[in-house]
Amino acid sequence: MTSFTRTGGRAVDQLRPVRITRHYTMHAEGSVLIEFGNTKVLCTASVEEKVPPHQRGTGEGWVTAEYGMLPRATHKRSDREAAKGKQSGRTQEIQRLIGRSLRAVFDLKLLGERTIQLDCDVIQADGGTRTAAITGAWVAAQDAVNQLLAAGKITATPILGPVAAISVGIVQGTPLLDLEYVEDVGCDTDMNVVMTGAGHFVEVQGTAEGVAFTRAEMDQLLALADKGVAELVSLQQQSLLLLK
Amino acid sequence: MTSFTRTGGRAVDQLRPVRITRHYTMHAEGSVLIEFGNTKVLCTASVEEKVPPHQRGTGEGWVTAEYGMLPRATHKRSDREAAKGKQSGRTQEIQRLIGRSLRAVFDLKLLGERTIQLDCDVIQADGGTRTAAITGAWVAAQDAVNQLLAAGKITATPILGPVAAISVGIVQGTPLLDLEYVEDVGCDTDMNVVMTGAGHFVEVQGTAEGVAFTRAEMDQLLALADKGVAELVSLQQQSLLLLK
Amino acid sequence: MTSFTRTGGRAVDQLRPVRITRHYTMHAEGSVLIEFGNTKVLCTASVEEKVPPHQRGTGEGWVTAEYGMLPRATHKRSDREAAKGKQSGRTQEIQRLIGRSLRAVFDLKLLGERTIQLDCDVIQADGGTRTAAITGAWVAAQDAVNQLLAAGKITATPILGPVAAISVGIVQGTPLLDLEYVEDVGCDTDMNVVMTGAGHFVEVQGTAEGVAFTRAEMDQLLALADKGVAELVSLQQQSLLLLK
Amino acid sequence: MTSFTRTGGRAVDQLRPVRITRHYTMHAEGSVLIEFGNTKVLCTASVEEKVPPHQRGTGEGWVTAEYGMLPRATHKRSDREAAKGKQSGRTQEIQRLIGRSLRAVFDLKLLGERTIQLDCDVIQADGGTRTAAITGAWVAAQDAVNQLLAAGKITATPILGPVAAISVGIVQGTPLLDLEYVEDVGCDTDMNVVMTGAGHFVEVQGTAEGVAFTRAEMDQLLALADKGVAELVSLQQQSLLLLK
Amino acid sequence: MTSFTRTGGRAVDQLRPVRITRHYTMHAEGSVLIEFGNTKVLCTASVEEKVPPHQRGTGEGWVTAEYGMLPRATHKRSDREAAKGKQSGRTQEIQRLIGRSLRAVFDLKLLGERTIQLDCDVIQADGGTRTAAITGAWVAAQDAVNQLLAAGKITATPILGPVAAISVGIVQGTPLLDLEYVEDVGCDTDMNVVMTGAGHFVEVQGTAEGVAFTRAEMDQLLALADKGVAELVSLQQQSLLLLK
Amino acid sequence: MTSFTRTGGRAVDQLRPVRITRHYTMHAEGSVLIEFGNTKVLCTASVEEKVPPHQRGTGEGWVTAEYGMLPRATHKRSDREAAKGKQSGRTQEIQRLIGRSLRAVFDLKLLGERTIQLDCDVIQADGGTRTAAITGAWVAAQDAVNQLLAAGKITATPILGPVAAISVGIVQGTPLLDLEYVEDVGCDTDMNVVMTGAGHFVEVQGTAEGVAFTRAEMDQLLALADKGVAELVSLQQQSLLLLK
Repeated sequence: MTSFTRTGGRAVDQLRPVRITRHYTMHAEGSVLIEFGNTKVLCTASVEEKVPPHQRGTGEGWVTAEYGMLPRATHKRSDREAAKGKQSGRTQEIQRLIGRSLRAVFDLKLLGERTIQLDCDVIQADGGTRTAAITGAWVAAQDAVNQLLAAGKITATPILGPVAAISVGIVQGTPLLDLEYVEDVGCDTDMNVVMTGAGHFVEVQGTAEGVAFTRAEMDQLLALADKGVAELVSLQQQSLLLLK
Repeated sequence: MTSFTRTGGRAVDQLRPVRITRHYTMHAEGSVLIEFGNTKVLCTASVEEKVPPHQRGTGEGWVTAEYGMLPRATHKRSDREAAKGKQSGRTQEIQRLIGRSLRAVFDLKLLGERTIQLDCDVIQADGGTRTAAITGAWVAAQDAVNQLLAAGKITATPILGPVAAISVGIVQGTPLLDLEYVEDVGCDTDMNVVMTGAGHFVEVQGTAEGVAFTRAEMDQLLALADKGVAELVSLQQQSLLLLK
Repeated sequence: MTSFTRTGGRAVDQLRPVRITRHYTMHAEGSVLIEFGNTKVLCTASVEEKVPPHQRGTGEGWVTAEYGMLPRATHKRSDREAAKGKQSGRTQEIQRLIGRSLRAVFDLKLLGERTIQLDCDVIQADGGTRTAAITGAWVAAQDAVNQLLAAGKITATPILGPVAAISVGIVQGTPLLDLEYVEDVGCDTDMNVVMTGAGHFVEVQGTAEGVAFTRAEMDQLLALADKGVAELVSLQQQSLLLLK
Repeated sequence: MTSFTRTGGRAVDQLRPVRITRHYTMHAEGSVLIEFGNTKVLCTASVEEKVPPHQRGTGEGWVTAEYGMLPRATHKRSDREAAKGKQSGRTQEIQRLIGRSLRAVFDLKLLGERTIQLDCDVIQADGGTRTAAITGAWVAAQDAVNQLLAAGKITATPILGPVAAISVGIVQGTPLLDLEYVEDVGCDTDMNVVMTGAGHFVEVQGTAEGVAFTRAEMDQLLALADKGVAELVSLQQQSLLLLK
Repeated sequence: MTSFTRTGGRAVDQLRPVRITRHYTMHAEGSVLIEFGNTKVLCTASVEEKVPPHQRGTGEGWVTAEYGMLPRATHKRSDREAAKGKQSGRTQEIQRLIGRSLRAVFDLKLLGERTIQLDCDVIQADGGTRTAAITGAWVAAQDAVNQLLAAGKITATPILGPVAAISVGIVQGTPLLDLEYVEDVGCDTDMNVVMTGAGHFVEVQGTAEGVAFTRAEMDQLLALADKGVAELVSLQQQSLLLLK
Repeated sequence: MTSFTRTGGRAVDQLRPVRITRHYTMHAEGSVLIEFGNTKVLCTASVEEKVPPHQRGTGEGWVTAEYGMLPRATHKRSDREAAKGKQSGRTQEIQRLIGRSLRAVFDLKLLGERTIQLDCDVIQADGGTRTAAITGAWVAAQDAVNQLLAAGKITATPILGPVAAISVGIVQGTPLLDLEYVEDVGCDTDMNVVMTGAGHFVEVQGTAEGVAFTRAEMDQLLALADKGVAELVSLQQQSLLLLK
């Protein structure tokens, strides 16, 4: 249907190789390096026995996320946000998205008055860092929750089910799954889709970078995302079956 | 189909009364007060004969937006961002959305090396401030462009066509068009849809605040948005027919 | 006595048309749009059941003010303070002046341990924004206090009497009342005077922009201010007689 | 007329002992320690061969001021503004006042495109720091200008005449000249008056801390200020007669 | 000589296992993961064809460094500096140290008017992060320089020789080489020593955390450091012998 | 041994004239002006009956320091840190050094839960400001402690002994004691040494500004520092013998 050729001959509806490495660093309760091809994001889950002011005394916990990019994770070095003294609008948008996505599958009452703080730091960027972050953060959160269960701090899991995310987009008229950087910069439409294991939507964020997209195109993109997320959820499950 | 009753007996697929007042303040090249029911947003378009660094020397112009909320536009007073010394993540998300939405219908080459700066300030909030802002900003931009044409600074309009936005959501299982504040806080899903006059998508941002939403629900929401935006585009056109 | 002609043939000792619109927005306990000619300032009074640290446990309340200017309230767009990350020295000076002026007519003991937060936001600027803000804020505060009385939260009014403010200045050697923008930029001396209903001084801030001014000139300016404030106090009273 | 006793039996219309020490530090073009009783302010004038953006290319120079307070200049230690990351509203008000006061006696054209930067740092505070700062800054500026003349960088002095400042106030019903700290905290009205050598007003800033003040009281205060400033101007002249 | 037992039976004058992995990420001109035992620091060298203002037009280049710590690199999560809006004093101290250390072995003239920006980000912390950063940054800088040479942008290497760093300290009276975290928190004296390949000192920073240390102890510490740095320099050389 | 000539014919191992003036300002519990030649630093010690969070409830006190430089303390005016909105890395490094140095001779338990806040502000800079600050701060702290003892708030001194600091460096191959500014800018190696009255090391911070320095040179520098600190400690003692 199209003459477009992807890196490594990847099919239009094919994910890049995904690798999920648990216990990547030693201090965090959950620590996952997730790779979508050349995109590498370190996701740690830290358990803190306190909650932000708006949750104090409610008996409920909180799940939140922060996102960062090492300065030279990208083709061209980007300024260090700590040195500039503020996080960019893009960074804030992404970390708010990660936080909402994870909270969508959490029963905060079952978590108890504690916080799971997710830190998603991009070690190397090649497109799709926010979707990799959400997908990896869920595995890290799972490890942290399992540790709370093992320690007897909670008796039932507060995680209602899996959540994962993937990007889809239209490049030269062709809908593609899981855009890498060169596809992302040249695309007309870019959409990030966050879904549950049951295939329902948690977040849909589509943007026409070039021409506006039609309803028919949206349907194609959502179908691709549905396929991609189902595969990611399966990979999340497999990674959790490994001992340690 | 549902027992849900909206304020004033509004139908599920009905917009709130929309009012567009042009020339609301006297200094700006475009100045529009837009009202979606009790939500009131002042949108001004300022023409500046300079562009940000990334556009310098390209011969192209720029369109950008800032968003603010008067401290007591809301039920409960919110802290003034200027006093806190930073814009919230929410504010940045919204102003980036407005900027992208307007740029989607602009030919920056035809604008020439100048900037149209849109300022969207919420005077009174009752849900849907960002969609009102986009819809009103387009009218303000149109007035600014007409002034540039009249002054002979440009010879062809850089505006490719209309753009407008509306929120849709699911409240107690019922898909609704144009959520007011009380509906917004109680909704399961909230979606902001930005579309062109041709009915194509510029931005789709859907979030499951409660349970994740299904593909069927998404289809219902997109259909509502399509109806709402078409009506808004018609109202934009009418407002521009008025002399000054 | 002078050949100077003011906009609309205004006399040297004449106020611009003043309009005070109460209940301008719906959420605030007091909400007043005040207009001095083309200058339009929205003044809201918000009641908060808490006080700043220095008043805690004293049994006394607090009255404070913040001031802002919409970016395109002015002839030329000014940068948004929230985006710059700090309030200018001018903004801080003005909001401190408004707060002191209002506190001068408040018995903080009778207010009880609560705060009246005044927000004065300039929608359109044409000179005299700080004096309009003080004059309008007093009406908004009165509405908020009346609501506290009606709700039985306080039993006696903490407001000791009216306060209002006006600018006076010397333009081309002629002392003028209530300077509009073009007069303000060209004046030699600019003075803001805040007075009580009894005609006593709360604040006098006079600045020689050009040549220093004499004692005789000061006397003329103070006489003009006395006349202007008396008229404003009368207009404040009239606006409060209206139902609603 | 009053039973009020001042420190050291000072008369109501008497200045504290004033001491002006030129060449207090060695690097600045002008460096003056000025003492009003126990209040000690170091005023330096630095000449910089550049002007701020708004003066570039105009052929005119600029005079500006910054004000600071050592953390333990006061009875109780105040937080260091550099550590807090911002200057207080009070600090900004004062440094803007100093800058305007000095510019009032400067012909910026004769200064040429260079800046005189005044730094007024309070070493020890006991009331009246801003008036001491203005009075001392003028002497420092004079020394800097003399150095420019001596170096042949300018051929005529840009200083039009002297400027000095003093505080006056009403304490327990008695108008007083040059308030020290304990008088300042207990006063009903506090006024800072900046005047030229010719006895004309540059700035008048009066504030009713307690009850509003009458026109008659204002007249008394202005008369005291007139006397005080005349004495200060005379002391400024004497200090400049000293060699070195 | 002492009864102190180190992790893994390490000798008092023994380094932890050191691992240097070049080309760890793909975008940077130099990218090195350096491990001192469980301490892991990613050091990237980015070449930018511009210099900071103080070097412009001098014909000389610049070498500078930034340092960061992922929030959960540590036992207990530390706040993200980008979110707090400023870098800590510790972070600034460390990055200034890294920059000075590297510049000590650079001939900035031979580098030409370009900058080598070093980013040292701690992925996992277990003591000695700043010394690992310096040691790894030098290897990354070497790779970046080799790329400049290969591209013909420079014709002679600006690197004068190796530089490496190690920590030494006194724990329970025993001088130790290369402190890991548990040793660091319990030590009396902590010293970071930066030396050239020739065994000369570039930086010596010793701090008595507990009791002050004697001249004899300092001599013991410097001898340990000398041994450690010599071994690190040898490991740096070996790592550079590997192809790619 | 060398042909190098120092200002005023000072010997290579000779301190500049040192002057310690106690009770320099009137509000602080300890207030010392210390002069090393033309370098003048005002060191105040303020006692506050509270401790930072990490010490609360421990029964222990805290000693901390802040450092600042008046804008025109230097040859060329430097920007005011309060106006820039942040302290430089250099400032933070220095104030952390002063704090650690003073805490090294404090028994925080004997101080009780209170803080001694040291403020070191440079009035005039000519090299060695940080070492003068440490040396003067110790005297100021001593005065503050004596006041606590006299008031019966503590019964035993928490000060374990003296601490003082001096800079040493190598200029044109010659090791020098107590570098003044012109020596400092031209030196190859600059070292700041903080020592106790017993001649033990608290801090050693040596930096090769030019070529790396040898072990033999370090030995020479440490010997010079030892001599200098011993003299400073003696001068500290003498200054404290004076009545008030």
